[in-house]
Amino acid sequence: MTMHRHFETELEELNRQLLWMGGLVERSLQNAIQALVGPDRKLAREVIEEEDAINALQVEIDNRALRLLALQQPMATDLRLITAAMKINSDLERIGDQSVNIAQGIDYILDYPQVKPYADIPRMGAIAQEMVHAALDSFVQRNVEQARAVLLRDDEVDTLRDQIYRQMLTHMAQHSKIIIPAFQLTLVARNLERVADHATNIAEDVIYMVVGRDVRHHALDRR
Amino acid sequence: MTMHRHFETELEELNRQLLWMGGLVERSLQNAIQALVGPDRKLAREVIEEEDAINALQVEIDNRALRLLALQQPMATDLRLITAAMKINSDLERIGDQSVNIAQGIDYILDYPQVKPYADIPRMGAIAQEMVHAALDSFVQRNVEQARAVLLRDDEVDTLRDQIYRQMLTHMAQHSKIIIPAFQLTLVARNLERVADHATNIAEDVIYMVVGRDVRHHALDRR
Repeated sequence: MTMHRHFETELEELNRQLLWMGGLVERSLQNAIQALVGPDRKLAREVIEEEDAINALQVEIDNRALRLLALQQPMATDLRLITAAMKINSDLERIGDQSVNIAQGIDYILDYPQVKPYADIPRMGAIAQEMVHAALDSFVQRNVEQARAVLLRDDEVDTLRDQIYRQMLTHMAQHSKIIIPAFQLTLVARNLERVADHATNIAEDVIYMVVGRDVRHHALDRR
Repeated sequence: MTMHRHFETELEELNRQLLWMGGLVERSLQNAIQALVGPDRKLAREVIEEEDAINALQVEIDNRALRLLALQQPMATDLRLITAAMKINSDLERIGDQSVNIAQGIDYILDYPQVKPYADIPRMGAIAQEMVHAALDSFVQRNVEQARAVLLRDDEVDTLRDQIYRQMLTHMAQHSKIIIPAFQLTLVARNLERVADHATNIAEDVIYMVVGRDVRHHALDRR
């Protein structure tokens, strides 16, 4: 009985920590985009500095999940929650990595002739942020419909990425002076695409966790 | 007792399937690089066609691992093996994705004026392949030293990537006609960088599995 109580408390703590992690990562993404669009180099440095805290929390969450798996034989639903938490944790950390990548590249954009208004990048950034937020919210609410809606936005993101690539390649062909910042902006588009991919992974994990069925590589195959 | 035997058989099968997956993914990576360097458009199509088999195997391995976790309360070492297998499985599938990305981009290189000999891309491809192979081998052999050697090569890959970016940006500035294929080659460099990242993740999982200690985000912090 005490064992069981202990398990429940630990499970709640896992849940709580994962949401805290989600909050940190959402802020880091928002700050990275704001640092670029602002522009705001100080904010970019903050994103880079906060990476350590996110990494430390990832390791802590992973260890807690492993302890829970070892603690007792979890029931099927708890098992799905714990393994989903481990996967979501890993996707969140990688979203944090992408924010850091964006922040680290900002000097290569701001130190060169202006490519502003950055074509469709702010729009792509807003969509990526919405997807991450909705994916996390679908986890909190155990809301499969909301998770499915996240999956449907992935094509939108890929279309925007291709559009940004075309816009930047056209800029490069016309003005060889902006080749470096325009190229850097294609990397930002790529980072945002990966953020959307991770949001999609999280949504898939939520669906699996709730309905116990794997939705990867199926009808909605987007990988 | 029968229960235990069943567990052991299933665990062996998990191991076996994961190595099969590793073999498929290694071949897919090798073919994607060969398709580019050859060049060989037919081989590129093969890589794209084989993606489904890799995806199906990933789902099968994941389900088997989950069943194992549910089957009985695994001992700490088995638990580490099973969770490592789940993570390695996911990294392998993503290496397969990168091979497909490379294969899908080949027309954008071959249909345009030549950028050959592709600068440092073949060398970067060879290193990425070696890293994947060594990471898988370290898993088979439970060889921590070999896994650590994989981690040390990640910097080499990042340096090569930056070099290729510089080379391609220089090409673009000199000949605007090759902007599209040169840009496409920067995407290949980025794909290979991600392959190396996944090989690194696998090596980290092997170390964790064998010594039971987390090596992410520590002394060798390379993320």
